[in-house]
Amino acid sequence: MSNRVRLFVETSLRKDGIIPLNDKQMHYITKVMRLGLGNKLVVFNGKDGEWHAEIIHISKRLCNIKIIRFVGKSENESDISLVFSLLKRGATDLLVEKATELGVSRLCPMISKRTNTFKVNANRLKAISIEASEQCGRVTVPIIEQPKTLGNILAEWPRQKGLLFLDESGSGKPILEVLREKTSWQAHAILVGPEGGFTPAERDKMLQNSFIRPATLGERLVRAETAAISALSIYNAIMAIDHYKN
Amino acid sequence: MSNRVRLFVETSLRKDGIIPLNDKQMHYITKVMRLGLGNKLVVFNGKDGEWHAEIIHISKRLCNIKIIRFVGKSENESDISLVFSLLKRGATDLLVEKATELGVSRLCPMISKRTNTFKVNANRLKAISIEASEQCGRVTVPIIEQPKTLGNILAEWPRQKGLLFLDESGSGKPILEVLREKTSWQAHAILVGPEGGFTPAERDKMLQNSFIRPATLGERLVRAETAAISALSIYNAIMAIDHYKN
Repeated sequence: MSNRVRLFVETSLRKDGIIPLNDKQMHYITKVMRLGLGNKLVVFNGKDGEWHAEIIHISKRLCNIKIIRFVGKSENESDISLVFSLLKRGATDLLVEKATELGVSRLCPMISKRTNTFKVNANRLKAISIEASEQCGRVTVPIIEQPKTLGNILAEWPRQKGLLFLDESGSGKPILEVLREKTSWQAHAILVGPEGGFTPAERDKMLQNSFIRPATLGERLVRAETAAISALSIYNAIMAIDHYKN
Repeated sequence: MSNRVRLFVETSLRKDGIIPLNDKQMHYITKVMRLGLGNKLVVFNGKDGEWHAEIIHISKRLCNIKIIRFVGKSENESDISLVFSLLKRGATDLLVEKATELGVSRLCPMISKRTNTFKVNANRLKAISIEASEQCGRVTVPIIEQPKTLGNILAEWPRQKGLLFLDESGSGKPILEVLREKTSWQAHAILVGPEGGFTPAERDKMLQNSFIRPATLGERLVRAETAAISALSIYNAIMAIDHYKN
């Protein structure tokens, strides 16, 4: 599958359905990937699994594809969210791209005391996550939430869902140990702070919640986006063992 | 230490030594970080550990710093190399930056059958790795080797040093398992192929070597640079446990 052209579409998918591509999709399919009439591609919409489709019409302004057959639902999609402090544009872009590749189901931008960027271009982040999903073979696209303050995120957090806090202060146990501990606590989300970390008051407030576990990536200082990518990689490495054994 | 200004210098370091900064360093220190006469900074050269220094002279064209005192040697620097297929410029830049943050001691660009970029700007990669070292608190800077073919890398490889091969074909065990196995084999380097992977012939040739162990990151398709960052993150997570226990 890896060399197949994959396209995310917003419409629902069923056999024999015909989908007109928008300008951006048409450019990608005909100019970037150089497909033509009769060529096959894979489409997905994040809900209905993966389908084969065929280009049945191309003109200067229009490209239609027809859904041929169902390929499959998503296997092994993980259910891990990432709560991250808004970073500078390049760092946020990278984080969204890599978190998508690494299978994050939900991206939750957060504003905390030391967050120093407040602008979010939701369309831009969505476009990045769609492109990454197309390229990495995902059948879903992560949900990108509206930014919320740390206070609101904590107040609204579902108590039964474990939140792993990447604690720069190093107080937590090593992340691999926290994720593999056999307790009733299970990580459903990873939380990474801004460059410069959380304030002591924020940290204390977080650690009062029993759904939060602090963890450390080690003594090395890494940027916030690297910390997020590392934590997701480690989470996936553990999942890979569980899948391998079953 | 994290908020200190850190500067990599090419000269050797000893107490009371005076170092004239070059234009780029001067720009960084005075314009970007806005330090002035009498301000302190941290310097390192990759060999002599970390030192405190002070700005003792600033004029329009010249900035001198004086070495004040020794801070310390590097603690816990890991000895892991990364052998990677040359990628497109942006991807190679990202890989060098993140691998530096993640503590790689040596970066070995590789050319294999499906490598489709052959240009390397060694100075550019060195500058990226120096900047990343300055920012992440490393006391060393990774060595960046000249590109070699896969054949040459295998032929010259020191047999006693384990090479973990990120095998996209999924034949290997999960990476966490391979890295934690209690055998005489130990990973000293991680090998990541080009986008599109290795050819079957290359793969067979690699697996004939007993110093090579294949491993999988899981079923998810990720880009080559993401695979490298993930593998290094997982390696570090294991090291973090070992340090925590000792």
